[in-house]
Order: sequence, then structure tokens, then C-alpha cells
Amino acid sequence: MQRSERLIRLTQLLVERPLQALSLAHLSEAWDIAKSSLSEDVATIRKTLAEAQRGIVETSVGAQGGVRFHSGVPMDEARQFLDGLAHKLSKPDRVLPGDFVYLSDVLGDPHVLDTVGRLVSMQYTNKGINVVVTVETKGITLAAATARHLNVPIAIVRRDQRVTEGPTISTHYVSGSTRRIQTMSLGKRTIPPDARALIVDDFMRAGATARAVEHLLKEFSATVVGTAVFMATSQPTHKMVNDYFALLRVHEVSEQGVHVEPATLIDIQNG
Amino acid sequence: MQRSERLIRLTQLLVERPLQALSLAHLSEAWDIAKSSLSEDVATIRKTLAEAQRGIVETSVGAQGGVRFHSGVPMDEARQFLDGLAHKLSKPDRVLPGDFVYLSDVLGDPHVLDTVGRLVSMQYTNKGINVVVTVETKGITLAAATARHLNVPIAIVRRDQRVTEGPTISTHYVSGSTRRIQTMSLGKRTIPPDARALIVDDFMRAGATARAVEHLLKEFSATVVGTAVFMATSQPTHKMVNDYFALLRVHEVSEQGVHVEPATLIDIQNG
Repeated sequence: MQRSERLIRLTQLLVERPLQALSLAHLSEAWDIAKSSLSEDVATIRKTLAEAQRGIVETSVGAQGGVRFHSGVPMDEARQFLDGLAHKLSKPDRVLPGDFVYLSDVLGDPHVLDTVGRLVSMQYTNKGINVVVTVETKGITLAAATARHLNVPIAIVRRDQRVTEGPTISTHYVSGSTRRIQTMSLGKRTIPPDARALIVDDFMRAGATARAVEHLLKEFSATVVGTAVFMATSQPTHKMVNDYFALLRVHEVSEQGVHVEPATLIDIQNG
Repeated sequence: MQRSERLIRLTQLLVERPLQALSLAHLSEAWDIAKSSLSEDVATIRKTLAEAQRGIVETSVGAQGGVRFHSGVPMDEARQFLDGLAHKLSKPDRVLPGDFVYLSDVLGDPHVLDTVGRLVSMQYTNKGINVVVTVETKGITLAAATARHLNVPIAIVRRDQRVTEGPTISTHYVSGSTRRIQTMSLGKRTIPPDARALIVDDFMRAGATARAVEHLLKEFSATVVGTAVFMATSQPTHKMVNDYFALLRVHEVSEQGVHVEPATLIDIQNG
């Protein structure tokens, strides 16, 4: 196998499965290539992607060792992406009755989903997250995209109880918008032992839903590492969860339009 | 920029965004590299990935021309993946009351989701699909993974009506399992004009849900290109939809266990 082929194959294997450890020892056997050559190839890929701000290639040693790829987005591209989204979502025809903002099209757009997944995963990398938790329905696509870049499973909290979830744990909470008592349930088998969970959702106003998920996860003895939402309202300023990250912040929803602002991102690639 | 760097950057750009056209003219300017060199690089990537059965690099000419990547899975790996899933899902502890099979863990596993997305997209490539439609809740993760590899948006049919969807079209149908009248609704803005839809869902017994989605999509004047499900039951053999593809087929669900068989795949990479 020529060097050019190895670079192509290695790049594909790394970027297609973010955070999945690739064993060079195993590849060295499968491809019949000296491990030292593969290590040099990996170094070239690491340098090239780092310079382009397109992700971090990390090598860990030891029995569980291997090469892993952290997905990245160049900071100028990320800012451009969020500015573009903020502009698009600020249009008056997005305002729905009750001061909601229409998001279903962007939450179904494959490029938006993938980029949001990258950006959120970048904010929570190396925090030992082993499950992404969301609430049906609108947050699921975002949560799945984030879980892909964090290489962890996704668990979906349901508002009803279905036989298909197997045994569940249920809790109740008072909805922030309707002030009614709601039920949440989560399949017992979907949360790993010693779970470190990232909550992902589409929209946060007061944070009642996110706090309810936190309470539900306590029943699983899980640690909540953080909450990431696609869009949060600026009012109320005090949310019911402490630690949350919002990609977009929305001010003043009215029939004249919406004012949406992009978040400040942590630049892990130059951090 | 050296050739090795170009191969790495091009491979990443192609595989990270399946079916997104990459303009070599644009890259030639941005990277200050002769377009002929980039074309040679693309030819090397095409050959390498084709030989490894890891996707197809396609070049189209003309004003809208560019280079696109069709995600692939080597056939032996695909068969191994489906055999492994069938084995895992055949265990007696998967059987739920009512002869349902517990699937939530696999439908939340990032590797399963990505591989299923690849396999389903491979079966429906080049069919002009411009939207993937699913029904909340369990099918959403699969549908999103498939939509990513087809590079099309996902639209989610809901069983309730929410203000956040904007104007919706609703239809009614009789559920296959409960025999009760159910409502389905879909946001008017989520289906493009001249839609060619692929329906993706987790489970099919008689096909009542899939047929209901077909009927709902008729109200949008959409063409249904096909229906893909993760798992279908062998009984009843006659389903309420004509054209469907199931990755796994389940026979004889009982307390002793389940018998799950993998599907036969179309090998587009050697077709």
C-alpha cells in the first residue's frame, strides 16, 4: 500500500468515526505495513488537520491505546455559520403564536445538524460524557448529531410510557409554559452505570424541562455534566439549571420579528 | 500545499459531507493549486476508496458540477454488522410483552445508527430522494442518520399537534396494533415542493403506520420512493405498503426468544 493510499484510508477511518480509538497495531497487521510508517502517516494527518483547524488527532498509549479524532470546525467558519443562522431565524415569518420561533426546518437540515453536533461536542470534549440525553421530539435530531461526534449513545426521555422502552423510571414536573403537571419517563436500560450525561434540547425558556430531566437522571444516579440547547431566550435571565450552553440567544419575539444572537464559542483547537 | 496535505484535506471534505458537491474550481482558488492537480488527487482518492469498497467518489461536469462522495460499507463488513445485530437482538431478554422486541439501546448506539444510515442510503442512492420522513419517536435517530448520508432534510410526522410546527396537515388512520383511530400531523413547511420522499421507521408489522404516512404525504403531493425499516416481522407476509426494505426480519417472537435474520443487501459498489 502506497503512502498516498494510507493517508486517504487513515483520514477516512478517523473522520468518519469521531472519538473511536483506531489501533495502529491492528492496522499494521491488516495492511501489512510497519507500525512506524503508520505513526508517521498519523503525524502528517494530525499536523494537516490542526493547521486547517479541522479537528484534533489524539494518540493515547497503553493497552487501550489508539488514535482518535475530535471533530472540529474552524472558528471563522463556526462564527459565519452561527451568524447565518441568527440572521435566518430573525425573520418575522418565523414568529409563531405564543412567541415561539419556527425551527423545524433548520432542525431537519443535515448540514445544520452536523455542524451543531460538532460545535456542541467541541464545547464538551474531554469531560467524560458517556451518554447524551434529550426529550422527545424536537431535540432528538440535535442530540443524535452531538452523540455521534462524542461517540456516545443517546437516550430519549418520553412524555408517555411505551411498552417498547421496557422497564422505565418516571417522574413528574410542572411545565414552564402550561403550568400543568407533566410526566417524563426514561427506559432503565438506556442509561449506563456511572453515567455522565449531557442534556441536549432545542429550546430553553425558563429551563423547567432541563431541570426535570436533571431530576429524572438523579433517579438513575447519573451525573449531569451540562445542558446544551440550540436556542435559549434572554428572558428570564435566571434559568432553573445552573450550567447551560446555548448556541443562539433570542431576544424580543414579537410580530415585527425576532432578534437572535449567536453564542460565544470556546475555541478548543487554539485553546 | 503539498500533495499529502491535499489528499488529507480533500478526503476529509468529501467523507464528512456525503453527497455535497465540492467545487474544484473554488478549491483551486482558495488553496492556490492548479485545478488539474486537484483532479489528479480526486482520481487517487476515488481509486483508493473504490478498491477498499469504502464509498464512491463521483465527478459531475457542468455549471452545477463538482465532486461528491457516496458513503459506502464494504459488503463483508455490512454482512458481519447485520449478523452481529441479528444475534444480539435474538436474545430472550429482548422480548417485551405483546411480542415487541427491545430496540432502544441499539437505536441509540452511534455506530449502529451511522452504519444503518450508510446501508439504507446505499439502497436508495441516485433515486432523486429529497426528503426523509419518519414518525416520532423511535425512528427519528435512524431517519436522521439516513438523511445525513443522503444529504437531504428530515421531516418528522407527529402524533399530536404542536404550535412549534407552524401550519400542519393532519390525517387519521387506524392503528395496526391497537385498532384505534390515530391522528398524524406534519408541518406544511417541512416538505419541499416536488418532494420525493423516503419513509424511514424502526419497526413494521402490518405496515399500517407506513401506509398512513404515504396517505399523509399524498396531501403534500409528494412521491413516496420507498419505505425502509430497521426491523420487519415476517408475519403477516403481506404488508400494507408495496415497496419496502427491511434490514432485519424477525420471526417467532416468544418468551423463549426471537429469531432475527439479516436482509440481503444490494451491493452498489460492485453493481
